[in-house]
Amino acid sequence: MTSSTSPTSSDSTQKPPAKDPWDLPDVSGLVVGVLGGTGDQGRGLAYRLALAGQKVIIGSRAADRAETAARELGLGVEGADNATCARRSDIVIIAVPWEGHAKTLEALREDLAGKLVVDCVNPLGFDKQGAYALKVEEGSAAQQAAALLPDSRVTAAFHHLSAVLLQDTSVEEIDTDVMVLGESRADTDLVQALAGRIPGMRGVFAGRLRGAHQVEAMVANLISVNRRYKAHAGLRLTDV
Amino acid sequence: MTSSTSPTSSDSTQKPPAKDPWDLPDVSGLVVGVLGGTGDQGRGLAYRLALAGQKVIIGSRAADRAETAARELGLGVEGADNATCARRSDIVIIAVPWEGHAKTLEALREDLAGKLVVDCVNPLGFDKQGAYALKVEEGSAAQQAAALLPDSRVTAAFHHLSAVLLQDTSVEEIDTDVMVLGESRADTDLVQALAGRIPGMRGVFAGRLRGAHQVEAMVANLISVNRRYKAHAGLRLTDV
Repeated sequence: MTSSTSPTSSDSTQKPPAKDPWDLPDVSGLVVGVLGGTGDQGRGLAYRLALAGQKVIIGSRAADRAETAARELGLGVEGADNATCARRSDIVIIAVPWEGHAKTLEALREDLAGKLVVDCVNPLGFDKQGAYALKVEEGSAAQQAAALLPDSRVTAAFHHLSAVLLQDTSVEEIDTDVMVLGESRADTDLVQALAGRIPGMRGVFAGRLRGAHQVEAMVANLISVNRRYKAHAGLRLTDV
Repeated sequence: MTSSTSPTSSDSTQKPPAKDPWDLPDVSGLVVGVLGGTGDQGRGLAYRLALAGQKVIIGSRAADRAETAARELGLGVEGADNATCARRSDIVIIAVPWEGHAKTLEALREDLAGKLVVDCVNPLGFDKQGAYALKVEEGSAAQQAAALLPDSRVTAAFHHLSAVLLQDTSVEEIDTDVMVLGESRADTDLVQALAGRIPGMRGVFAGRLRGAHQVEAMVANLISVNRRYKAHAGLRLTDV
């Protein structure tokens, strides 16, 4: 391989040098909204991101419930109804229960227009044998979000986090990688950078949205792992 | 919680102490067959298991191809046609290409009767955007194997291993966990123990066969990871 000596080289067959995949943007000034921020996963993420210095707004169907949760968290976290939360945020994490996923997103299509949406919802069922992955018509929760939000930039991430560890104030580091999926590198880079703000976490690009189902469904396996080993399992990618 | 003071306690409501999930059986004396052992994944697994001291038989449709591959590996590895390989082995790893999966297993139903079968096949498609998970009527390759082999004990494991690393003789340790799925704890314990014989590897129980699809499909994401980071990614479970 030869390297370019001039940025204005007219050799059109010459590729630019590959971008360092760990060269991620600064997201410290962005406002992060968490829809479903009064649930365990959403509240835990809101806490960790606020603790890392991010401006966080919790969204809920009822503004007063969001405001109460925000007050309990402190750290400058605010609470608002879902639509206000979406409009005021640059990045919006979707942490609502799967049962309300489609309905919630449909109602917020305009509020979420232009936003970077991060879906972390895991469509799971439970029976006597534990958790199992639900079939989703669009393929995954993230692909359903992309279908319902044509004017948003939809990514998927933060699926494998233990809500227990996220909310445990005695836990200083969350020992896990965060698989980030999306169609645009600019968007997945932003989400990776956001994950990387939380001590112990690392955001790793893990493919396009069509690969989201198995990332969401893997939570069922982690629940089996947690039962057998009395653990709060996370995932690390090795050799990366 | 009170602890039992007598092993012959007549209190029928008292549960036995939970078995240590890391108390795994000795599998060093078992013969391991690898169907599809002339392919990259099969050959790599055969090499690592033989190197760890396991008696390994490589199976292939043509006995002479299996024998050639076995001779190349050395380490006491033998080669045989698939049926002979299956009959002579205690544990049989299925490492055939997905395209030949159903047909191969159907033909070996009797040879695999009573055997502990370990399916490590990943049903994937490839296009310009990379790898993607194929839909499997039975849910997953492992569930297809279970449906086709009613007289075998079917488990799933060894999906996330890099065939490149497995076959690289300069690599001494494979830094990854092996998710093991199955219906019977006795069987998954044996497969976990087998994985644990390879330096660096650890077998971790990760649920029943109904959770195999996402484990198989996750290989598509690992291929995306490998492309972006020029890596041979594996997976570790944290907090376990």
